[in-house]
Amino acid sequence: MAEYELAVRGGMVATGFGTARCDIGISGGRIAALAGRIADAAETIEADGLLVLPGGVDSHCHIEEPQPDGSVIEESFLTASASAFAGGTTSVVCFVPQWKGHGVWERYRDHRRRAAGGMLDYAFHQIISDPTDAVLEEELPRLVAEGVRSLKVFLTYDALHLTDAGYLRVLAAARRLGCLVTVHCENYDAITWRTGALLAAGLTAPKYHAWSRPPVVEREATHRAIALAELVDQPIQVFHVSCAEAAEEIARAQARGVKVWGETCPQYLTLTAADMDRPGFEGAKFMCSPAPRDAAEHERLWEMIRRGVLDVVSSDHSGFSFEGERGKRRHGAGAPFRDIPNGVPGLAARLPLLFSEGVAKGRITLDEFVRLTAWNPARLMGLAPRKGAIQVGADADLVLWDPRRRVRLTNALMRHAIDYTPYEGMEVTGWPVATLRRGAVVMRDGEVTAEPGTGAFLPREPYAFIRPRGVLADGFDAAPAPGR
Amino acid sequence: MAEYELAVRGGMVATGFGTARCDIGISGGRIAALAGRIADAAETIEADGLLVLPGGVDSHCHIEEPQPDGSVIEESFLTASASAFAGGTTSVVCFVPQWKGHGVWERYRDHRRRAAGGMLDYAFHQIISDPTDAVLEEELPRLVAEGVRSLKVFLTYDALHLTDAGYLRVLAAARRLGCLVTVHCENYDAITWRTGALLAAGLTAPKYHAWSRPPVVEREATHRAIALAELVDQPIQVFHVSCAEAAEEIARAQARGVKVWGETCPQYLTLTAADMDRPGFEGAKFMCSPAPRDAAEHERLWEMIRRGVLDVVSSDHSGFSFEGERGKRRHGAGAPFRDIPNGVPGLAARLPLLFSEGVAKGRITLDEFVRLTAWNPARLMGLAPRKGAIQVGADADLVLWDPRRRVRLTNALMRHAIDYTPYEGMEVTGWPVATLRRGAVVMRDGEVTAEPGTGAFLPREPYAFIRPRGVLADGFDAAPAPGR
Amino acid sequence: MAEYELAVRGGMVATGFGTARCDIGISGGRIAALAGRIADAAETIEADGLLVLPGGVDSHCHIEEPQPDGSVIEESFLTASASAFAGGTTSVVCFVPQWKGHGVWERYRDHRRRAAGGMLDYAFHQIISDPTDAVLEEELPRLVAEGVRSLKVFLTYDALHLTDAGYLRVLAAARRLGCLVTVHCENYDAITWRTGALLAAGLTAPKYHAWSRPPVVEREATHRAIALAELVDQPIQVFHVSCAEAAEEIARAQARGVKVWGETCPQYLTLTAADMDRPGFEGAKFMCSPAPRDAAEHERLWEMIRRGVLDVVSSDHSGFSFEGERGKRRHGAGAPFRDIPNGVPGLAARLPLLFSEGVAKGRITLDEFVRLTAWNPARLMGLAPRKGAIQVGADADLVLWDPRRRVRLTNALMRHAIDYTPYEGMEVTGWPVATLRRGAVVMRDGEVTAEPGTGAFLPREPYAFIRPRGVLADGFDAAPAPGR
Amino acid sequence: MAEYELAVRGGMVATGFGTARCDIGISGGRIAALAGRIADAAETIEADGLLVLPGGVDSHCHIEEPQPDGSVIEESFLTASASAFAGGTTSVVCFVPQWKGHGVWERYRDHRRRAAGGMLDYAFHQIISDPTDAVLEEELPRLVAEGVRSLKVFLTYDALHLTDAGYLRVLAAARRLGCLVTVHCENYDAITWRTGALLAAGLTAPKYHAWSRPPVVEREATHRAIALAELVDQPIQVFHVSCAEAAEEIARAQARGVKVWGETCPQYLTLTAADMDRPGFEGAKFMCSPAPRDAAEHERLWEMIRRGVLDVVSSDHSGFSFEGERGKRRHGAGAPFRDIPNGVPGLAARLPLLFSEGVAKGRITLDEFVRLTAWNPARLMGLAPRKGAIQVGADADLVLWDPRRRVRLTNALMRHAIDYTPYEGMEVTGWPVATLRRGAVVMRDGEVTAEPGTGAFLPREPYAFIRPRGVLADGFDAAPAPGR
Repeated sequence: MAEYELAVRGGMVATGFGTARCDIGISGGRIAALAGRIADAAETIEADGLLVLPGGVDSHCHIEEPQPDGSVIEESFLTASASAFAGGTTSVVCFVPQWKGHGVWERYRDHRRRAAGGMLDYAFHQIISDPTDAVLEEELPRLVAEGVRSLKVFLTYDALHLTDAGYLRVLAAARRLGCLVTVHCENYDAITWRTGALLAAGLTAPKYHAWSRPPVVEREATHRAIALAELVDQPIQVFHVSCAEAAEEIARAQARGVKVWGETCPQYLTLTAADMDRPGFEGAKFMCSPAPRDAAEHERLWEMIRRGVLDVVSSDHSGFSFEGERGKRRHGAGAPFRDIPNGVPGLAARLPLLFSEGVAKGRITLDEFVRLTAWNPARLMGLAPRKGAIQVGADADLVLWDPRRRVRLTNALMRHAIDYTPYEGMEVTGWPVATLRRGAVVMRDGEVTAEPGTGAFLPREPYAFIRPRGVLADGFDAAPAPGR
Repeated sequence: MAEYELAVRGGMVATGFGTARCDIGISGGRIAALAGRIADAAETIEADGLLVLPGGVDSHCHIEEPQPDGSVIEESFLTASASAFAGGTTSVVCFVPQWKGHGVWERYRDHRRRAAGGMLDYAFHQIISDPTDAVLEEELPRLVAEGVRSLKVFLTYDALHLTDAGYLRVLAAARRLGCLVTVHCENYDAITWRTGALLAAGLTAPKYHAWSRPPVVEREATHRAIALAELVDQPIQVFHVSCAEAAEEIARAQARGVKVWGETCPQYLTLTAADMDRPGFEGAKFMCSPAPRDAAEHERLWEMIRRGVLDVVSSDHSGFSFEGERGKRRHGAGAPFRDIPNGVPGLAARLPLLFSEGVAKGRITLDEFVRLTAWNPARLMGLAPRKGAIQVGADADLVLWDPRRRVRLTNALMRHAIDYTPYEGMEVTGWPVATLRRGAVVMRDGEVTAEPGTGAFLPREPYAFIRPRGVLADGFDAAPAPGR
Repeated sequence: MAEYELAVRGGMVATGFGTARCDIGISGGRIAALAGRIADAAETIEADGLLVLPGGVDSHCHIEEPQPDGSVIEESFLTASASAFAGGTTSVVCFVPQWKGHGVWERYRDHRRRAAGGMLDYAFHQIISDPTDAVLEEELPRLVAEGVRSLKVFLTYDALHLTDAGYLRVLAAARRLGCLVTVHCENYDAITWRTGALLAAGLTAPKYHAWSRPPVVEREATHRAIALAELVDQPIQVFHVSCAEAAEEIARAQARGVKVWGETCPQYLTLTAADMDRPGFEGAKFMCSPAPRDAAEHERLWEMIRRGVLDVVSSDHSGFSFEGERGKRRHGAGAPFRDIPNGVPGLAARLPLLFSEGVAKGRITLDEFVRLTAWNPARLMGLAPRKGAIQVGADADLVLWDPRRRVRLTNALMRHAIDYTPYEGMEVTGWPVATLRRGAVVMRDGEVTAEPGTGAFLPREPYAFIRPRGVLADGFDAAPAPGR
Repeated sequence: MAEYELAVRGGMVATGFGTARCDIGISGGRIAALAGRIADAAETIEADGLLVLPGGVDSHCHIEEPQPDGSVIEESFLTASASAFAGGTTSVVCFVPQWKGHGVWERYRDHRRRAAGGMLDYAFHQIISDPTDAVLEEELPRLVAEGVRSLKVFLTYDALHLTDAGYLRVLAAARRLGCLVTVHCENYDAITWRTGALLAAGLTAPKYHAWSRPPVVEREATHRAIALAELVDQPIQVFHVSCAEAAEEIARAQARGVKVWGETCPQYLTLTAADMDRPGFEGAKFMCSPAPRDAAEHERLWEMIRRGVLDVVSSDHSGFSFEGERGKRRHGAGAPFRDIPNGVPGLAARLPLLFSEGVAKGRITLDEFVRLTAWNPARLMGLAPRKGAIQVGADADLVLWDPRRRVRLTNALMRHAIDYTPYEGMEVTGWPVATLRRGAVVMRDGEVTAEPGTGAFLPREPYAFIRPRGVLADGFDAAPAPGR
């Protein structure tokens, strides 16, 4: 019997902390050895001339979420898995919804059932939109016991936003339970007010979506989310930072020692508000929240990435098709922007876009690319070193990446359920030629070969970096002394 | 007939922009002339060896406000006038309340009637706690037509706080009407949450008042108040800044061109959180909101004053007696801090404290003192140059100030209705020996001589510095373009 | 005999701290009274419809400076006086040179003689380019006794720059003697190095002057000048700030309590580096140091002015004619930029440019204009309240200003000795129609009427704001403790 | 024949990016494999219960430097090697001196000869104290061809400091040649001036060393070093940052995209200025430059470490014995501080101090510790991944570290030539129990076993991160446009 079940040979292995030319020996779905030469393997994959990267970890994806009205968003775990593998991503953290007036446990069980049908490995963020005692004190501890270790809250959206009081309750519960809290930071009241004013003035086209939520609205909520987390002494991650002024609030907080992390997404590095002004309702394809800004903002965000202020790039994959009864054009091409579902798909495009715009164009290094897309999200989400790392004992989630391949993006290449990609026609340099998930080849040359139902749930441990400073209840013990 | 009705002679006249030894000729209650020598006056006051300052303008006082339960706070316009004159202040901006579910016009009329009984000159801030359409669109324009040009909103307190939505409505209305908005910046939900936690933990003594509202709570609300004002493009003044981290948010906004001003009060320059821990419920005498911080914070605030970040020092005179049925001890000496009415009196102590701690101790110059206490509030509130200035045409509101007089503060010297002063026993250097209001001596050596009913209402013009940038309704026209 | 020798009647008097319609009574060259109506005056000037401003104080002018080679710069006190009066300026602080290897006393005496021939009132900055013991310990105390209270040092220029060691010696001497130190902040070595590289690369045209001294060179020297002044605890003023990044260093220092002030000049608010690229050697007319930047920088500087970071606008009048044996073209039209004398004239243009670009275009208020051009420089230089103020006892230096007059600038209007103005053809709104110096009309409708030899030397007192903290020699006593 | 020459088995391998329990297979002095289980090795070291770290990389050590007077500093490569191994360090970057008036090639050859006698692996920084054309244009290219890729300049010290002109020449040469420049940032003139004032005032004791160079002196030079590097577009590392205000200048520069890195040393995290005031002449033992600050500064530096502003902790090992003819007391116990040689030893103490104060006390994580002491310096100095990394192909430089061992530091444990350690008596938690250099055990339980002469020179490649932006000579091509 061979020493290893599989060997990946001859690639340049990039761990996020330097590269080394070496072979990888895999057994039982895990990395069993890294060595200059692994001869004794049952099977071999040749990686000459290719980079070998840890499988992408996408810590911000919306997949198959049921809605209160009984419908379900169109991207299923099956289609999402294909899309992820096609783009070099092997695990995700996606969302379990909570509907106001309902609990979370049932939704969690339902989502486990749904996710079991896919091929991706997955962990869950539990959305909290109704932080009742029952949810926080009875259901959440059960979820945590199952290994759900991050909560998601929204500071905007009619159906989802929390008041500060609700957000504080979630922070305090997270602190008790050892969870991370992730936050969508935009000011609900401000957006509502501006939206009303715009619509009243007859300014309804897709491009006014951006007008309804300018950067100051994001900066305000970012500062508030951080300040309240400081009060409770609870770590948070700020999701999808779209502009430097919001990122600067994160930087300032980090500089004073606050445990806050920042994420951005490819759409904020490549799309602009002007895209929403494309003719004939096409603009709706580029609507997401926060809204894309302008090209100068892209460069400022790259600088924030290089500074480490933003250390995760995820997709916020959350698309709706353009056509169809639940599509962006569901209410017709004259629908006011408020009524157009927003979100853009990006599960497959994330790595190619970031590699091409980042590494190939010299804005970031290969090390930074790997950390942004795999190591950092895995570590922050408590998935490392099982995920996001190429080291002995880690899951053998690997991507064979051709750094020179030039590809023109099309929706077909995305392999998702959505009928368009906002990146249609963009040319990228760098492309995944094969993807391995736990030692099995699940994608080769665009062909996805995994069996439905092979994805694994990823339970997580308590966060090591969450060290309560005191002993009283509800975060109160963290209260700084009055003079502070 | 003499050329002038009155001459103030031989003093060092301090205008806030240098000092000059000259005489002041007064006729018809106004300054008619400044000259090296005014010989021809019907009456003469000798000011040799004294400073002659513009009468203090206290732009933040709570006087005779009726409460929803039918009671009225104990400081009447009569007693407040005596206290103000005793301390060298000649005009105030005080508050017209709004009770939830009620309008503002009736309260305004009532407050005009009340104020007419005093001797002080007065303008009004209209508090908005319930920004209905009726209030904003029907009543407020009438108030503005009467010359009420500033609104006050609270971001905390059970009965008063506005949500962001309400605050935005007030900002937009103020912008339409040409008013200034003044803001109490503390986060309501955060204070409520912490208060609950403290009381649940049995931490009820007065000192826990400070624990319930640490600086981060103030900084958060300050940033938010500014950010939403930026969105609407509406000038605001942040009231009673107690700590450098909140002031720094103001400084940052000023540096990016936002029209925001900051005020602080003597209590934040002299009292500390430790005062609230004095034995035997004495601590309750020092409770106000925001809470006093510590001595290091005092020095940081002085620096913010020298930088011009905080350019007004008002009293926030808002006291309750210690004893009595509406006093701080009304619920007994074991009452939890939440139930103790807060606020401290300071109308009479403001100038002596600021002169002594500021000028006499070398922290600020005499020019800065005059600007902080008279010129700046008068200008910001639209009362200058009628008030706050010693110039031809201005009201002859003058204080004769002995810069060397040393006085130990007692409650009797304060001449207010409240039964204590938090500054009892403090020794100050510098003291008002006479006060003139519109050319009449209203205080001399502590004796207040004005007749009740002689105070005048001060109607105000639209703010010159409020220039709407556009033409659409409701502040929308001020909407920055999406990329901003 | 009339009560006053002269009355200025019916104008809007603008003191920098509000405006009032009043008359001004003048006797003995001083303001004797401000009053609603001054009837009894020997002479009367009607100012209906005009602003009455304090005469401009230009605290940074090069006039009639002799050079080591025996020549003298072409602007004499006579021509400079005419130019100043034509532009509404009535007093200046100009420079006494020091040549390396020489002392300062003789130069001071010589400059007093020269200045006595003009009509302007004047004070002196003593340039220190060779800070020997003899100069600092023997000559400077004599100068200070004469009322010279400010020193000027250069951190660049071949013949003038001080090393840090020399600068520290000057700071320490200034501290002992109670003088202000003003500083030209650009890094000598860096400019020399870049100039060499540019010339070696054949890049010699005037526009490369800007390339030889980019903003970072100014920012560096600004931070250094401030840091060393902090070390010695000696107040300084940073001259002619041309860019926001240098101004930001001043702002940071002010925020930490350092006594540092910043000045800018009209050329940095109106000219750009592109002007130096005008065809046919015309660019040389716009060369000064620091170099003009770009239009975006103008707006950033206006913001720094509004913030108060830059609180004086002077002219740095230091021009050379374009033609002539000492002119900019003295070495021919192909001369490398290094050999072109730099500096631009601005004595007459300063107030019109600042009023027009500032007040008329809404960037600053009238109050700010008066403070920037008169009150602030007078106060900082120890000339207030005799100069820069309209108050009883001050010199009756007044400008009658027509805020609506539109004028196209020409060199003839400048009335200086130089054969060009960099502002030729610019249209301004606002113009001085008459100038009074110590109660005498010295300019009316462009006609200068003062007699040569009537200018007065302005001796100054020790700086009130320079308070040594300790007692040891040489600034050492100001040494912060090691931990600071 | 066994597959591997040596296996390290059962340890927790800490790479700086997570830990994994795995075995390490070593052949030919390099890491040949990382695997869950390596059975087939000729030799085995058991590491159960221990951490396995990459050998420490100390990028700032003074070893066996000859002086112009013919003497040599007492720490030889032999003793330094023993000290390094005893403390878990396996490679260093040390200094080749340059004496004014001399070249560098001969010194380099000499230093290669000296270093060949030790056991440590080594690279060189070339000190430039006399940047003549001959040195920069003829000798340096030869050194670079040998693999010397970093230069060291001093902005202070009588015999070593460069003027700005000299520093600019070095920066430009480094840019042409692809070298890093490291900088000692303190202002020479300021220190000289203060030292003179202190000595003149009779303040001569060791503690006045700190008074002679307060933080502002370091901050000034730090900003200047960075600004001039920005001008030339040349990467630099700022050495031994001792205070937050200097670190903040680095942080600001990093935020604007400047390629600047910051280093600190254990002495700035553990010693204070008060140590220099110990009785007798003991204070001299703690003298180094910059001077130790106070305990509050330690915490600020830790925060700068956590922020990543300071990302290398080296020793600046540069001690002198206390006794002896070249010792600190060479001029007697009354010697003025200026005449006491300064520098403290720290080669052996570096890792234990940083682990104990950092990891054991919860200030940094184990990952951060490894990066600060091995990965970051190796990467920045161009030694990674051969050094500083545990990955296939890297040199098998390993430390077996007992994280729980408590040790009281003594000079004997340091195994250096110097007769004292400033850390005498400090108790640390965490200790190296064995050190491997290129696969050979060179220290076990304090016993150093390597053969003299076994250390290897480490030639380095051009810096990957140094990408000239243009093509002209001397950095000029990097000139920002004038408006920038």
